[in-house]
Amino acid sequence: MVTRVSGGWLLSELARSVGGRVEGDANRRVFGVATLEDAGPDDLSFLTNPRYRSALARSRAGAVLVGPGAGVDGRDLLVAPDPYLALAEILDRMHPAPRPAPGVSADARIGPGATLGTDVAIGPFAVVGSGARLGDRAVVGAGAVVGDGSVVGADSILMPRVVLYPGTSVGARCLIHAGVVLGGDGFGFATTSGTHRKVPQLGRVVIEDDVEIGANSTVDRGTLGETKIGRGTKIDNLVMVAHGVVIGPHGLLAGQAGVAGSTRIGSHVTMAGQSGSAGHLRMGDHVVIAAKTAVFADVPDGAFVAGIPAVDHRAWKRSLALVKMLPELRSKLRTLEERLAALEHRGKGNA
Amino acid sequence: MVTRVSGGWLLSELARSVGGRVEGDANRRVFGVATLEDAGPDDLSFLTNPRYRSALARSRAGAVLVGPGAGVDGRDLLVAPDPYLALAEILDRMHPAPRPAPGVSADARIGPGATLGTDVAIGPFAVVGSGARLGDRAVVGAGAVVGDGSVVGADSILMPRVVLYPGTSVGARCLIHAGVVLGGDGFGFATTSGTHRKVPQLGRVVIEDDVEIGANSTVDRGTLGETKIGRGTKIDNLVMVAHGVVIGPHGLLAGQAGVAGSTRIGSHVTMAGQSGSAGHLRMGDHVVIAAKTAVFADVPDGAFVAGIPAVDHRAWKRSLALVKMLPELRSKLRTLEERLAALEHRGKGNA
Amino acid sequence: MVTRVSGGWLLSELARSVGGRVEGDANRRVFGVATLEDAGPDDLSFLTNPRYRSALARSRAGAVLVGPGAGVDGRDLLVAPDPYLALAEILDRMHPAPRPAPGVSADARIGPGATLGTDVAIGPFAVVGSGARLGDRAVVGAGAVVGDGSVVGADSILMPRVVLYPGTSVGARCLIHAGVVLGGDGFGFATTSGTHRKVPQLGRVVIEDDVEIGANSTVDRGTLGETKIGRGTKIDNLVMVAHGVVIGPHGLLAGQAGVAGSTRIGSHVTMAGQSGSAGHLRMGDHVVIAAKTAVFADVPDGAFVAGIPAVDHRAWKRSLALVKMLPELRSKLRTLEERLAALEHRGKGNA
Repeated sequence: MVTRVSGGWLLSELARSVGGRVEGDANRRVFGVATLEDAGPDDLSFLTNPRYRSALARSRAGAVLVGPGAGVDGRDLLVAPDPYLALAEILDRMHPAPRPAPGVSADARIGPGATLGTDVAIGPFAVVGSGARLGDRAVVGAGAVVGDGSVVGADSILMPRVVLYPGTSVGARCLIHAGVVLGGDGFGFATTSGTHRKVPQLGRVVIEDDVEIGANSTVDRGTLGETKIGRGTKIDNLVMVAHGVVIGPHGLLAGQAGVAGSTRIGSHVTMAGQSGSAGHLRMGDHVVIAAKTAVFADVPDGAFVAGIPAVDHRAWKRSLALVKMLPELRSKLRTLEERLAALEHRGKGNA
Repeated sequence: MVTRVSGGWLLSELARSVGGRVEGDANRRVFGVATLEDAGPDDLSFLTNPRYRSALARSRAGAVLVGPGAGVDGRDLLVAPDPYLALAEILDRMHPAPRPAPGVSADARIGPGATLGTDVAIGPFAVVGSGARLGDRAVVGAGAVVGDGSVVGADSILMPRVVLYPGTSVGARCLIHAGVVLGGDGFGFATTSGTHRKVPQLGRVVIEDDVEIGANSTVDRGTLGETKIGRGTKIDNLVMVAHGVVIGPHGLLAGQAGVAGSTRIGSHVTMAGQSGSAGHLRMGDHVVIAAKTAVFADVPDGAFVAGIPAVDHRAWKRSLALVKMLPELRSKLRTLEERLAALEHRGKGNA
Repeated sequence: MVTRVSGGWLLSELARSVGGRVEGDANRRVFGVATLEDAGPDDLSFLTNPRYRSALARSRAGAVLVGPGAGVDGRDLLVAPDPYLALAEILDRMHPAPRPAPGVSADARIGPGATLGTDVAIGPFAVVGSGARLGDRAVVGAGAVVGDGSVVGADSILMPRVVLYPGTSVGARCLIHAGVVLGGDGFGFATTSGTHRKVPQLGRVVIEDDVEIGANSTVDRGTLGETKIGRGTKIDNLVMVAHGVVIGPHGLLAGQAGVAGSTRIGSHVTMAGQSGSAGHLRMGDHVVIAAKTAVFADVPDGAFVAGIPAVDHRAWKRSLALVKMLPELRSKLRTLEERLAALEHRGKGNA
């Protein structure tokens, strides 16, 4: 799908807006941005991942956004210091995110004592509980449920069918995707004589500013304290954050990652897809957890871990390499046994 | 639970309809289909998985559907070339899938410019956005949300609480289960100085014909292009398909599988439960990914891979076997060391 | 967040109610319960996990709930035989779970022939299908959908946006969290010539009494028989239970666990986070499946398994240790080769 906009932009104009420069025709005009595969002569495309260099050769794109030293010839280029960031900026400029018109649907239900900021937009069949507070320009999508006493900050968007349990707090400029559930009970049970008695879950969920949470992800309330997602943290789809977890600012949790109860994660931590962490652990800042990894112990600042259980990713790679060498090790061992037996035999013959 | 139908069917009649034959009493009449465990003398049961042969011995079933050469004696049998397929056909015949009566609930909200085919059924509290198009006999379940400009093909069913983000396209004869979210934003952020700036997600999701998607699964829109699920592909529950992924026709993605951004998957590919693939990869046709596998590299046509990271499944099994042999290898090594030391000692004695 | 209650409770009174005793000032009055970190002098805190002993030293808590022999000095203590159970009991006492006021929202839709017990509470935009039955004091949250002919037992709660497909049965005192889907179609397809034909899914889901199911989890209906969750079983968020699975009473399935079709699980089984089981297996009673484990074979009573594929957890740990020793094994092998070569050389010299 090619996204084109009438009027168009000069390459020089776009370059200036992202702190870049043009190589080639600075007066070329582009009308939209498209992938290398889909772009035509009127489009700007981009090379932000070297894997797609071969697609570039075949691309019909009129101009291409690249990083410094990309080594691309015969094209009009927009060279930006960080081309992926420049792509974000250009797309924002070409396609300012649409927001629903302000207004409260006649089919929404607003509880007593709820306070609505200016220019909020509330869709049909949404429910805003008693005492809830929506900041200015907050959006509550169709069928979403904002529990009693919950707070949604200014400019935040709850997509359709989001559920906030009572007492949940969402900061400003957050984007919560469809089907997300914030504030469900933590998984806490006291087991006696084989039966599981529920430990009441009385805490809440706090989502700080500028957080995005992907479709159908869930964040449970703390047993007594807070489950907290730090500002600027981005969470993908189908991610599970358990009760009492604290995730520092500027984290990235990719699809289907999970964090068990009470684990505390520092700032700028990346958990790749389908990775998980056991409960009651501490991860430092700037930690990277590889895809499919299972963390069963504390992780220090700056560590990059992989494997089940998680170890330093170099150790993990070494283990994999050694396991691959096992057939060779085994055959060497056999050879040694034979040579040794021959020697022993000769030794006896000599004796 | 036994599913019985009044009137019943002659075994001979059922056999004819599935291209099979009867061994035993072709005039036996069955009134429903049930598992070996639950079936009574009026029921047809089935043996489609050899694991349940012992359950067959105990079963009270009046007749049993089996494959050729099943070696079952003392029973009235319906022998079909592909008994599991025959089971599907017989169940379809006995229990035509119920569809809701056509009509638009007075409690649904239909946006301006939306077009509804003949005999559509729209449940209470459903929302159909402006400019959306529903094909003939399409079903939109209670509380489902069809975003502005989305398309739902003829005979497709959106179960309750499905959400289609604006611009999503669903083909004909699709079945989208409750809680599915199609078209949420891809997980794309440009990270600079440790903060994550959203890359606008402007593409869309295209679901081709005859696709089924299980409860609470999510498919994200492409950044600019399409995320596409090929025709006839079946997706289980809680599966995550990221932005820009293309899945070829006739795939099978089992529960909790996940595919990261921009990966392209060929036709007839099976991903078993809890398996995952990294992004920007290519999988060929007829690939099989074992359960819990993590794919970190391209996979050629016809490969059957397993492990973390994924390798050919025979190599994976060999590695497992070798790891199991490690205690033996270690003790052989010790024995060799002792024997060698003895030889060396004798050698010195001789010297 | 500190949870305080006006009036307060005597430590002695709380101790008596949980079968415990006070060490220190039995007349101390506490007004709420809080974590060690958050508690102030008016709060009772608790040490139920030894990892938090250091937090205890720093805590400002007025009194602390501990187990016998905790070895904590200089604090007013409530010593209970099972402190985590006592915590549950004390929280229940201080904070009886709020239930919505009985009543049926004017914005809910109740189908023909549905029967509602006394004091049910049905939220706005909920849909109760024809012939459905709700037990006394049952709660159906905002936007939840109870399919035709489904049953919800007395005192059970469906949180907002739960979907029960037609014919689902939920027992008494169950708590089903937001976004849960019960009764979606099982993932059953007969593949012929590369295309997948749907096997009709005609069974149902039966949830026994006292079950809790976490946000956005899914349980599929059986193909013909039942998918059953045994009484007292607790299921966390984003868990997938496939068609025909039977889970015995008093199980625990942690976040993102998955069970494939027709597997039968005994009583008191624990599946930790992100673990999974293949289909058509049998697990005995009192089985424990470690986090991230993949079960590919039957598991006997009482087993504790880990790894991919699952093995006895001690064997798994041994394998990990041996893999770690591989560098050492390899270097020993090299040394042996050198020593052997030397001996062989000398042998030749002697000859």
